[in-house]
Amino acid sequence: MKRAITIAVDAMGGDKAPQAVIAGAIAAARAYPEISVLLIGDETVMRAELTRQGTATDNIRLHHASQAIDMCEAPGVAIRHKRDSSIVVGMHLVRNGEADAMVSAGNSGAMMAGATLILKAQPGIDRPAIATLFPTIDGGRVVMLDAGATTDCKPQNLLQFAELGSAYAVQALHCPSPRVGLLSIGEEPSKGDELTKEAHKLLQTASGINFVGNVEPKEMLHGEADVVVCDGFVGNLMLKAGEGLGELVMKTLGRELHQNLFRRLLAALLRPAFRQVKRLFDYAEYGGALLLGVNGVVVIGHGRSNATAIENAIRVAADAARHRQLVP
Amino acid sequence: MKRAITIAVDAMGGDKAPQAVIAGAIAAARAYPEISVLLIGDETVMRAELTRQGTATDNIRLHHASQAIDMCEAPGVAIRHKRDSSIVVGMHLVRNGEADAMVSAGNSGAMMAGATLILKAQPGIDRPAIATLFPTIDGGRVVMLDAGATTDCKPQNLLQFAELGSAYAVQALHCPSPRVGLLSIGEEPSKGDELTKEAHKLLQTASGINFVGNVEPKEMLHGEADVVVCDGFVGNLMLKAGEGLGELVMKTLGRELHQNLFRRLLAALLRPAFRQVKRLFDYAEYGGALLLGVNGVVVIGHGRSNATAIENAIRVAADAARHRQLVP
Repeated sequence: MKRAITIAVDAMGGDKAPQAVIAGAIAAARAYPEISVLLIGDETVMRAELTRQGTATDNIRLHHASQAIDMCEAPGVAIRHKRDSSIVVGMHLVRNGEADAMVSAGNSGAMMAGATLILKAQPGIDRPAIATLFPTIDGGRVVMLDAGATTDCKPQNLLQFAELGSAYAVQALHCPSPRVGLLSIGEEPSKGDELTKEAHKLLQTASGINFVGNVEPKEMLHGEADVVVCDGFVGNLMLKAGEGLGELVMKTLGRELHQNLFRRLLAALLRPAFRQVKRLFDYAEYGGALLLGVNGVVVIGHGRSNATAIENAIRVAADAARHRQLVP
Repeated sequence: MKRAITIAVDAMGGDKAPQAVIAGAIAAARAYPEISVLLIGDETVMRAELTRQGTATDNIRLHHASQAIDMCEAPGVAIRHKRDSSIVVGMHLVRNGEADAMVSAGNSGAMMAGATLILKAQPGIDRPAIATLFPTIDGGRVVMLDAGATTDCKPQNLLQFAELGSAYAVQALHCPSPRVGLLSIGEEPSKGDELTKEAHKLLQTASGINFVGNVEPKEMLHGEADVVVCDGFVGNLMLKAGEGLGELVMKTLGRELHQNLFRRLLAALLRPAFRQVKRLFDYAEYGGALLLGVNGVVVIGHGRSNATAIENAIRVAADAARHRQLVP
C-alpha cells in the first residue's frame, strides 16, 4: 500500500486563487485518496470557499496563514518580511517534515527565494533549476532545465543542472541512463555562446553524466536527449516561445477553418483531433514545474493555473515526493 | 520605371546547389524582369545546369569563380584562403558596385565573415546582425534580430541592433515609427538576464528609438512590437524553436488526422487550410535573412533552400537593394 503523502498547497497563490486552487485541491483529493492535501492560507477565506464549493473530503485539511505574497512583490523582501505568508509557512512545513511537498501557483520568484532561504540548496548545488517537460514529436517527453530559476549561469551551474536533471529522469521518467544534451545552435562543440562552449567542455569530461553533446531545439523536440540543459533565461524563453507559437498555430488554423461554412462544418467534426494538438501547449496538462536542487519537493504552478492545473500540480508533487522517499 | 538591380547569387552554396539555386534564379529572373541575376560559380557546372534546365533568359548572366566554400569549413579561414570562392568573389562584386546585393544559401558563417572582412561594418556598428521576419497572430510581421550573427553581445550591440532594425522596418516594412521591443522573460525592466537588464537601460534613454520595453515571446507573436532585439544565440534558438515546434504541431496533427478513414477523408478536404498553417513555418516562404550592419545588401539563405527559397531570397535582396538606393 502507498504511504500517505502530505502536499502543502498555497490556497492564496495564483491569478485565480483561492477558487481555482481549492477546486483543484478537491479534485486531487478525490482522485488520489492516498494524498493528504494541506491547504495553506486565510482560514476564514478557505473555509468559506470550501463551503461554497459544497464539498467535504476527509483528506483535505486547513493550515492558517495570515498573510499572502502578491504576484508583483519583490521576492526576497516578501519572504523576509511576510513570515506568516502562505509560501513561507508552507516551506517551513516542508522543512519540518510536516508536509512532503509544497505547491503554489503564486509569485514564482517568491517560491524560489523561499525554497532557497528556508529549505536551502542541496549539497554540491550552487543554484536551483526549474525542470519542465516538453512533448516530443514521437509522443514522448524531454526534461528541460533550467526553465527560469537562474537567469545568469556559469558553466558549472549547467553541469549541476545536468546532474539534477539526470537524477530526476531516472526517478520520475524511469529512464535508466538519461541522455543529457546541451541546448545550442549547432551540433558542433564550437557552436553556441561562450557559456555553452565552456559548459560543453565541462559536460564532456564529467563522470556520471551520459552527455550526448549539443542539441538544437529541433533535436530536442525529436527526443534526441532525455534531459536538455540551458540557462534559466534561455529556458524560460523557450517555454514562453512554445506557448506563443502554440497560440499562433491554433489561431491561424482557427482563422482558416472559419473561412466558410463548409470548412466550419468539417472542422467541427474534427474537433477531437484539434483538441489533442492544443493539449501539447496547455500548461494545465503539465500541472507545474519542479524546482530542483533544494532540500524538499517544490512545485511551481503557472500564474494562470486553473483547477485542472492545480490538480495536476498536486499529482506531480506527490509523485516527486514518493520518489524522494524511495531514493533517500 | 524601376532601375535594373543586379543580384549576385552564389550558385555553389546550399545543400541543393547548384540545381535548386539555378532553378530559383531562373524563376526569379522570369518573375522579376527588372532584376539582373548574376550567378557566381564554376562556369562549366553552371552552364551545364542551365542547359539541363533548358532555359535561356536574358537577365541571367554568369560570373566564374573557381572555388567553393563547403558547409563545414571554418568561416574565417575559408574566406582568407579561398580568394576565388563564389562567396568571396560575390562580396567583391558588391563592394565594387558591380552587384547591388549578394545572396547565398551556403556556409552562413563564411557569408558573415566575408561580409565583415570585405564589405566592412557600417560606421557606428560594432557587430552585424541577421534580421528575420516572424509571423504574428493577427497575420502581420515582426522583425527579430539578431538571429545568429553575433552570439555573445554587449548591451551596446543590442542598442545598435535596435537602430539597424528600426531603419530596416522603416524602409522595408513601411513602418514610420517602428516600436522596438527587447526580448525578455517579463515585462518589468528588472526581468531578464544581466545583458537584457543593462540593454534595457540603454534603450530607454536612446534617442531616435521608439522603445516600448521588454516583450516576451508571446507579446512578440501578438505583434506588440515591430522590431524585437536579442543576442544572436537567443535569436537563433528562437528561430530554430519555431521550426521545431512547427514540425511538432504538424506531425501531431497529422497523427491525429490519420487515426481512421473518416478523419483522413475530412482532413483531405481541409488540406488547403492546413497548408496555410504549414506555411507559417516554411523558411522557403521567407526566402532568406538580411545581414544588417555591413556596407552592402547581403541575404543569407537556409542551407536546405529549395528553388522557391532562392527565388524569394533574390526578391528580398532586390527589395533591400532598392530601398538602399532610395535612402543613401
